[in-house]
Amino acid sequence: MSAPAPVSVQPVSVQKYGGTSVGSTERLQHVAGRIAARAAGGDRIVAVVSAMGKTTDSLVALAGEITATPAGREYDMLLASGEIVSAALLAMAIEEHDVPAIALTGQQAGVFTDDTHTRARITRIETDRILTELGRGQVVIIAGFQGITPGSDFTTLGRGGSDTSAVALAAALHAVRAEIYTDVDGVYTTDPRIEPRARRLHDIAYEEMLELASQGAGVMHPRAVELGLLYDLPILVASSFREDVPGTLIRKQVQMEPSNRVRGIALDRDVALITIRAVPDRPGIASQVFGPLAEAGINVDTIVQNASAERLTDMTFSVAHDQAAAAHALCRDGADDLGASDVILDEHAAKVSIVGTGMQSGVGYAAKMFRALAEAAINIELISTSEIRITAIVHEDDGQAAAQVLHAAFELDEPVLAGEAAPG
Amino acid sequence: MSAPAPVSVQPVSVQKYGGTSVGSTERLQHVAGRIAARAAGGDRIVAVVSAMGKTTDSLVALAGEITATPAGREYDMLLASGEIVSAALLAMAIEEHDVPAIALTGQQAGVFTDDTHTRARITRIETDRILTELGRGQVVIIAGFQGITPGSDFTTLGRGGSDTSAVALAAALHAVRAEIYTDVDGVYTTDPRIEPRARRLHDIAYEEMLELASQGAGVMHPRAVELGLLYDLPILVASSFREDVPGTLIRKQVQMEPSNRVRGIALDRDVALITIRAVPDRPGIASQVFGPLAEAGINVDTIVQNASAERLTDMTFSVAHDQAAAAHALCRDGADDLGASDVILDEHAAKVSIVGTGMQSGVGYAAKMFRALAEAAINIELISTSEIRITAIVHEDDGQAAAQVLHAAFELDEPVLAGEAAPG
Repeated sequence: MSAPAPVSVQPVSVQKYGGTSVGSTERLQHVAGRIAARAAGGDRIVAVVSAMGKTTDSLVALAGEITATPAGREYDMLLASGEIVSAALLAMAIEEHDVPAIALTGQQAGVFTDDTHTRARITRIETDRILTELGRGQVVIIAGFQGITPGSDFTTLGRGGSDTSAVALAAALHAVRAEIYTDVDGVYTTDPRIEPRARRLHDIAYEEMLELASQGAGVMHPRAVELGLLYDLPILVASSFREDVPGTLIRKQVQMEPSNRVRGIALDRDVALITIRAVPDRPGIASQVFGPLAEAGINVDTIVQNASAERLTDMTFSVAHDQAAAAHALCRDGADDLGASDVILDEHAAKVSIVGTGMQSGVGYAAKMFRALAEAAINIELISTSEIRITAIVHEDDGQAAAQVLHAAFELDEPVLAGEAAPG
Repeated sequence: MSAPAPVSVQPVSVQKYGGTSVGSTERLQHVAGRIAARAAGGDRIVAVVSAMGKTTDSLVALAGEITATPAGREYDMLLASGEIVSAALLAMAIEEHDVPAIALTGQQAGVFTDDTHTRARITRIETDRILTELGRGQVVIIAGFQGITPGSDFTTLGRGGSDTSAVALAAALHAVRAEIYTDVDGVYTTDPRIEPRARRLHDIAYEEMLELASQGAGVMHPRAVELGLLYDLPILVASSFREDVPGTLIRKQVQMEPSNRVRGIALDRDVALITIRAVPDRPGIASQVFGPLAEAGINVDTIVQNASAERLTDMTFSVAHDQAAAAHALCRDGADDLGASDVILDEHAAKVSIVGTGMQSGVGYAAKMFRALAEAAINIELISTSEIRITAIVHEDDGQAAAQVLHAAFELDEPVLAGEAAPG
């Protein structure tokens, strides 16, 4: 017997294109041209695609015309159709370049999830079909945001779902990284709409990106970043509109680099504060407050309980605006049982955070932050911290100024270190 | 061991709702109300649904913006999304009536087909999932028009696909009939837009319906009727908008009834005639003409070759307008090889047919038809017949008058027999 011919082990490139990037047939054709050019250059490509533009919103609106409480199973079936459409169209558009392409649903791509409809978790990916199609020389287009239960029902992955699909597929296919193509050209020191002097970062650590994302920086959903961290799979965030900008690589922190500094500022304006006044300071009071909120599916963010005076304490927490009324009502219902004197809702807050892995080994960050805000006459209502983040909650009218002040105070306005670039 | 409790053997009611019937969320809610009321009355219901309104047309247009030659596999994936959306929404709308409902894709419903994309044939239906869901007391909504290959790729069934889905599912589920709810309230002696005196038929034989359908009566696609004939499964055609009209039952001919008469008149205006002039009348000439047309996917309808004069013959056939130019070009390309003198395209024809199973045992139908048209000064260009149909091709300007003349001549204007009704 003769030896088999050597098999190419060209790694797989896993790319993801979001809704804006495929928002029209023209945009789809642009993306198809990019993919076809790379495929013609020899790359083996798996591209994960979101629904076109506002398709998902339209489907949500259709369901909303019928019911306020859709069954999760049917809701997922409905929403999954959006990515099936864009995947099929993108495959057609690539074929127009005489590059063979095939579109796969989440099911056909072997993306299995649990059965938690509307926010399912990926449990495993059976890559057989993908590898078979790649082996046939096909570009493989996969409908993002969706998976399948063991019982063959559609699921969707919730917010940030297509990013999560792409990172999970990249891990399962042993890609060297996941490439997320979107309508921004990378991760910035802060949102350039807030501070025009914001700079694009060449790279950022998973943990820093997680803190930025969970504090309101909308480039990527934290869930996909977590998955990158878990598999140590670098994630490139770059523009699907421009090819001349290299984007930002989210990756493991490289300790060799001088990283002892603030890397980015996040501003989140979707913040409402609820304060329960004069709660008796006894054991179990926190669970009595937050248990009912959790049961009602209310996502509580920052929690602060001030020092107890005469065994009475004020407890303040933040929620997103769309859950503020429900949270307020629940707390008022429980105020008598708590023995609280009052429950106050403040819908005019903003959350500004400084983020950087260097903060865990450095000192003086909090003092510098508070001093900068004080000098700008910005009042801090609440403070919370993690190892690599310090967050101040301020009045919403002060939010943008606070972000700008901190951007300057932590010397993010000027490109001082390697690994960062002026706005592209 | 005690004996198991007796199991209800309530038969399954298989219903189909077309695109107009679910053309908006309001229409979907109306259909949901009908289904919920029947389910609450104890019926076990399987409802097959088309895509909403013009959804399929919109998806076809999207593909058309990208390519003139979409891959069949991706085209089917694209189109299948339309019925997935309407099925999910209909299930949600039924649940709003506190009636449990579940939506299934063609795949989940076990509708297996061959892999002839865009016009697949159903090969088998594995009813396990449907029966399980019915057993749980669910109304089962199934995305029509679609199936799945053994390799788990989407297929679509081509024109009349959802009707075909419904009849095949009714057969597989041993339903007593398939109920097709649509935007007309039954089968008429002719199209009421052509002849206001047209009457709705209480019933019609499969064969008669097949001839009417294939001759231009658009109520049902012949393919679904053929499937009804094959399984001897009666098909009720009725309105999804009105509940007071009983509709028309397509069923096996009941020989006991007085059926020795014309049952309906079909008018088809989508007719172009191609005449190849002065072809040498030699063996093999027909295959020389029609072989290339078949290879080009052109669907040739009526063919007439007139009596040979001096070994030269004229050959005329009809095609649909959208294939007329291609057919004309092919015949002109081949005219020299054929030795034909000329190829003429006439895009202004119409086809009027009388249909009735009684015609096979009766005599004088053709004579009566031609006399009635002659008395109305309508010129007949071509004639073709089947056992239960006589078709005359006339100028398109004469089409409607021809249908009206024949409707009167064959006494269809007045309700003379049991089994027919005045317009509802």
